[in-house]
Amino acid sequence: MFDNEMTELLHIQYPIIQAPMAGGVTTSKLVAEVSNNGGLGMIGAGYMSPIQIREQIREIKELTSKYFGINLFVPREFDVKENEINSADRLLQPIREQLQVETNMEIPTFNKVTESFHQQINVIMEEKIPVCSFTFGIPSKEVIQMLKKQNIILMGTATTVDEAIEVEQSGMDIVVVQGSEAGGHRGTFLDVEQESLVGLMSLIPQVVDHVSIPVVSAGGIMDGRGLKASACLGAQGVQMGTAFLTCLESGATALHIEEILHATEDQTVLTRTFSGKWARGVNNKFISKMKQHETSLPDFPVQNSLTKGIRKASSLQKNRDYMSLWSGQSPRLAKRQTVKSLIQNIMGEVNKSN
Amino acid sequence: MFDNEMTELLHIQYPIIQAPMAGGVTTSKLVAEVSNNGGLGMIGAGYMSPIQIREQIREIKELTSKYFGINLFVPREFDVKENEINSADRLLQPIREQLQVETNMEIPTFNKVTESFHQQINVIMEEKIPVCSFTFGIPSKEVIQMLKKQNIILMGTATTVDEAIEVEQSGMDIVVVQGSEAGGHRGTFLDVEQESLVGLMSLIPQVVDHVSIPVVSAGGIMDGRGLKASACLGAQGVQMGTAFLTCLESGATALHIEEILHATEDQTVLTRTFSGKWARGVNNKFISKMKQHETSLPDFPVQNSLTKGIRKASSLQKNRDYMSLWSGQSPRLAKRQTVKSLIQNIMGEVNKSN
Repeated sequence: MFDNEMTELLHIQYPIIQAPMAGGVTTSKLVAEVSNNGGLGMIGAGYMSPIQIREQIREIKELTSKYFGINLFVPREFDVKENEINSADRLLQPIREQLQVETNMEIPTFNKVTESFHQQINVIMEEKIPVCSFTFGIPSKEVIQMLKKQNIILMGTATTVDEAIEVEQSGMDIVVVQGSEAGGHRGTFLDVEQESLVGLMSLIPQVVDHVSIPVVSAGGIMDGRGLKASACLGAQGVQMGTAFLTCLESGATALHIEEILHATEDQTVLTRTFSGKWARGVNNKFISKMKQHETSLPDFPVQNSLTKGIRKASSLQKNRDYMSLWSGQSPRLAKRQTVKSLIQNIMGEVNKSN
Repeated sequence: MFDNEMTELLHIQYPIIQAPMAGGVTTSKLVAEVSNNGGLGMIGAGYMSPIQIREQIREIKELTSKYFGINLFVPREFDVKENEINSADRLLQPIREQLQVETNMEIPTFNKVTESFHQQINVIMEEKIPVCSFTFGIPSKEVIQMLKKQNIILMGTATTVDEAIEVEQSGMDIVVVQGSEAGGHRGTFLDVEQESLVGLMSLIPQVVDHVSIPVVSAGGIMDGRGLKASACLGAQGVQMGTAFLTCLESGATALHIEEILHATEDQTVLTRTFSGKWARGVNNKFISKMKQHETSLPDFPVQNSLTKGIRKASSLQKNRDYMSLWSGQSPRLAKRQTVKSLIQNIMGEVNKSN
């Protein structure tokens, strides 16, 4: 059922990719365990410095000899509007005071973000990581050519048929198709004004009909049922985030994991509050408080910088109210278990019914 | 694969239910053809008078000896707020003038709606229709008992795990689980303030884990892939709307069908504009024009009455701008074909791979 182009390209036994969750979730142990157990571990490196990336790659190489991958955020032009920042700051200041956070005014610029992206790419090439995926867009032709010359397998992220077509046309090898069920940031990059939220039941077959590279299904998949359903819809594999986030090897905070384990499917919401990009997480005070101002908040990554101190302090103070509690729409299926048992359970379910 | 409790209860050969689309789509020919071809045809009777219902049931009985069903809207208390109606009217008046529609001021009351519902129930019992499904809530214990005494199979509609549990606890036989992908009205009835939009990939397995009655998967399912995927997730069958709406036997307007056949997966949107309840359809001028006022429009069915003339005139004038172009999220998979060929294609695909 799963000896396919995708598993062959990625040199993996099972069609399971661990989603590259940014923000410290993808510890070296998590990534390596996934790869050691037949899946593809991925580093969520979107916010990481080149030095951190190099260190983690080397650490993982000591823990596994299998393929693993890394994910980067593709920079896109963003506006830095003084008035938006000022009004966001006015809303955030009382929260900063409550949590005793210093005002963080380091506003990113597009040039700086782009420079950092190219440094990330350089490390990836130097370290010869086997797989690299991208979110929030498609890198330039030059970057894609450089990476392909090194035989790095490239994966793009799409939320619509048109985005999947662009990923294929850019020369990437695999397209990860993110349904509306997915937790964390939306990968939408075309027509970002109108956030596209298409469920996987609709999205996968429509994408499969329009591209010829392997399609990976992402969003709300937690067990063998989701993997089998994805295969029926035409996907060659799955990328799972929340299911790995609650694993024992994950770097997510205990509070974040607890929140997911106790959430229901209708308690995750989409919000721009944390970063300026739409993302799905368990509802909390911060999200509901900011809801009415949501669409006038600064763009990513400006808003992300503005809330950085708040998110950090809230997490350190074990205060769920202001943390980004990313989760997909299937929290009822989340379990606290080892990576090994998660993967074995999935494949056991799949094989049982074949 | 599909000899299961659901197909047995409904006396159908294939696990395919034609969604009971209201507003003239479910012609007697459509309903009968679905049942004659091994599925379950359903009358969308939400807006129909008792007399119309009786006539259509009798008409269908002449076209098929197989099981078929009917769907009713469960009345729920609604507010009739003068100020909301007045401001909605101010927004609608220029459109009425443009389309040369008379102002329709027949505002429904809860008592009248409830009375009409009970008349509909009476006809259903008198005509001994084999299957009855409900949307927007759960009827009273008395109604459920009366219908069950007549051996009518009852189906409820749920959009969350909690709603599915309520459907089961009410004594209904089957629960139709509506994912965020679904076209037309959302069936949400608990906590209607927060519209729950969970994708089927997440929703089906979480519901299946919490109820023991058969689960039917609804939303964006158009072909054998969706049926197989639904089965993998734990559903015993599917309910398909858009796929039947574009069939040759459907009563949908030619323009509505054309709009679906030319739409893409990211062009359907959720709107309260037409009826006061959230519903998914192809985006158009009316939806975008009213978007900024959307949350302050009157409740269903008040807003539905206010826009009735506009919708009707727009449709007669073949003007897509103000029509309700209901569609799920898979319009790229829609085809103009007979019911027979739709069902045969689905089952052909399913059997091929087994």
